[in-house]
Amino acid sequence: MENCLFCNIIEGNVPSTKVYEDEHVYAFLDINPINVGHTLVIPKEHCADIHDIPEDTLQHIMSVVKKLSTAIKKSTELDGINISMNNGKAAGQIIFHSHIHIIPRFEKDGFEPWKSKREYKEGEAAKIAERIQEELL
Amino acid sequence: MENCLFCNIIEGNVPSTKVYEDEHVYAFLDINPINVGHTLVIPKEHCADIHDIPEDTLQHIMSVVKKLSTAIKKSTELDGINISMNNGKAAGQIIFHSHIHIIPRFEKDGFEPWKSKREYKEGEAAKIAERIQEELL
Repeated sequence: MENCLFCNIIEGNVPSTKVYEDEHVYAFLDINPINVGHTLVIPKEHCADIHDIPEDTLQHIMSVVKKLSTAIKKSTELDGINISMNNGKAAGQIIFHSHIHIIPRFEKDGFEPWKSKREYKEGEAAKIAERIQEELL
Repeated sequence: MENCLFCNIIEGNVPSTKVYEDEHVYAFLDINPINVGHTLVIPKEHCADIHDIPEDTLQHIMSVVKKLSTAIKKSTELDGINISMNNGKAAGQIIFHSHIHIIPRFEKDGFEPWKSKREYKEGEAAKIAERIQEELL
């Protein structure tokens, strides 16, 4: 897509530090990493998010994410890895070309995402689960 | 695994609010959700993390995550979705049975994970990319 940053990275019109490429997937270092080695894995075919991405493309991307996670672990001597995919502006998605983050984590690196959590009221969980199940039919 | 909370949830020894189940995957509501509808998708076969999970199991889980994400979107009228998998204690993993979070997000829900980001020094990105590529060989 002409005005998509990630399409332009795939095309080579915008420079990136590539870590992996195959027929369907491109992976490169995030230029503003959470930690060193923070990698983005993207489909070559433009798609916006989890709802939009073809199932077989998503499956292939996750195989690449798994391989890369282990390679990044060996390369950076990290203590943990967050794998995350933000879908929609409200979820922190900035570039609307679907991408999966591989984020190396280190003991006491100071990041504590998702601090506060709520609890379900009586009956609330069962109700929402039922609604989700209905949508799956 | 006998002392694994999630294995016990799958076995029905510990109660959960199920939203989906098939031969290989079980999905249920997180009891301390970030937002209502926060769902965990887990493999029935015990495995610890991204390094440990069989590739085909991971691929199947992601297909379920995609289906559930769309169902949860329709059920909760959310504005966005974070999909995340924490691997290792340093990455916030608490239960060491691999799981993927589907986290509904709403405009101005107050969560801002991953606030601070760093930049690479001259030559640093190329060096780490090279190390990762070596590990992929």
